[in-house]
Amino acid sequence: MTEQQPIYRGKAKSIFRSDNPDELIVSFRDDITAFDGAKKDELTDKGVYNATVSAYLFGRLEEKGIATHFVRMEDERTMIVRPLTMIPVEVIVRNAAAGSLVRNYPFEEGQRLDPPVIVLDYKDDARHDPMINEEIIVALGLMTAEEIDAVKTIALQVNDLLRAEFGRIGLDLVDFKLEFGRHGDRILLGDEISMDSMRLWDMETHASMDKDVYRFDKGDVMATYATVAERLTGA
Amino acid sequence: MTEQQPIYRGKAKSIFRSDNPDELIVSFRDDITAFDGAKKDELTDKGVYNATVSAYLFGRLEEKGIATHFVRMEDERTMIVRPLTMIPVEVIVRNAAAGSLVRNYPFEEGQRLDPPVIVLDYKDDARHDPMINEEIIVALGLMTAEEIDAVKTIALQVNDLLRAEFGRIGLDLVDFKLEFGRHGDRILLGDEISMDSMRLWDMETHASMDKDVYRFDKGDVMATYATVAERLTGA
Repeated sequence: MTEQQPIYRGKAKSIFRSDNPDELIVSFRDDITAFDGAKKDELTDKGVYNATVSAYLFGRLEEKGIATHFVRMEDERTMIVRPLTMIPVEVIVRNAAAGSLVRNYPFEEGQRLDPPVIVLDYKDDARHDPMINEEIIVALGLMTAEEIDAVKTIALQVNDLLRAEFGRIGLDLVDFKLEFGRHGDRILLGDEISMDSMRLWDMETHASMDKDVYRFDKGDVMATYATVAERLTGA
Repeated sequence: MTEQQPIYRGKAKSIFRSDNPDELIVSFRDDITAFDGAKKDELTDKGVYNATVSAYLFGRLEEKGIATHFVRMEDERTMIVRPLTMIPVEVIVRNAAAGSLVRNYPFEEGQRLDPPVIVLDYKDDARHDPMINEEIIVALGLMTAEEIDAVKTIALQVNDLLRAEFGRIGLDLVDFKLEFGRHGDRILLGDEISMDSMRLWDMETHASMDKDVYRFDKGDVMATYATVAERLTGA
């Protein structure tokens, strides 16, 4: 597999064909990036921690009846998934205000959002992933109104499960980002659910336990990722 | 009135108290600005054209049963209105793609949007009026979900009337911005509806007949404003 060329190389994952046309191979690399790629590093085992957490959470979601692209792990950083035609919309669920929500609107950092707030961004690096709304998504033909409703409902179900999972290990799920894709006539949850795509705060100390440690130089990034992966999966 | 201090001075209008506590005086000044105020000028009679068009359109909307803040004109640039507690959300209705929609998403300039697309912006100069969504509006306590639905319904009714009015004089209503405010327990349409707050394209030549003439130095701004005002109101 390592000799093969990836069919897609993202900022932190590479995707390869497999012998089975209904499976793809996702390799979680050790690359970490922030600020639209302006900050980049390679951190040993980062890909393993994110793959481990993603696989664990996809498995828990599947048990609850939420359909994902996850098939199985091939090794500690290599995930076998269903091939999806990705929908270029990031679905962000927020339980408390942080990041762009605090920069763009008069929220206090950490202000609770109940019910949770869903924000949709148009995934396009060159345009810096601008916020989008449901009517623009429909006008662009990316999803129908019914599909958007379905995806938002799934996102809130994922939120319930993730809050419980992280609550169990003393972490507050502040926000997270999901991506979906089409597989035949179904829409499946794709991409990853990892410390790169969530904000997790320690419930006691409020310390960041996610990529903000890397973004804002808040401490030992890999010790943080390792702690979350070990506590969550009990490994 | 000219000796009084305004209680609010916007980029193009000043608001004064009147002897009637349920009325305010709005003076449409000759100031014109663009790009968050980075470009500014004073153009003779600009305030008169915008006041004339706004008064005409508010009158037509009232005839159709759409409640606005408009009471009457005092002189050609001075409008008497109901005092509103403004809601800091810009309601933008788009019948074709232009401006930020083309910059931020893969639309062709002029691409028709049917049904029309409504975009909501958070009105805050310091934050450059970022796009907002319904859930954030509710979380900030700016409007309830039911109020947002009501305001969007009104915006589409306004669109129908404005498209007909401008269609009658050979102009294509590409997009426009509305602002609403609270008056007692009612939400009324406020602010202005003018060449400063709309995109109008000549149906034959596709020439801009609105503030884009000023923004992008496309021709004689005041001749354009005068043409729209005269054709629309028959004055």
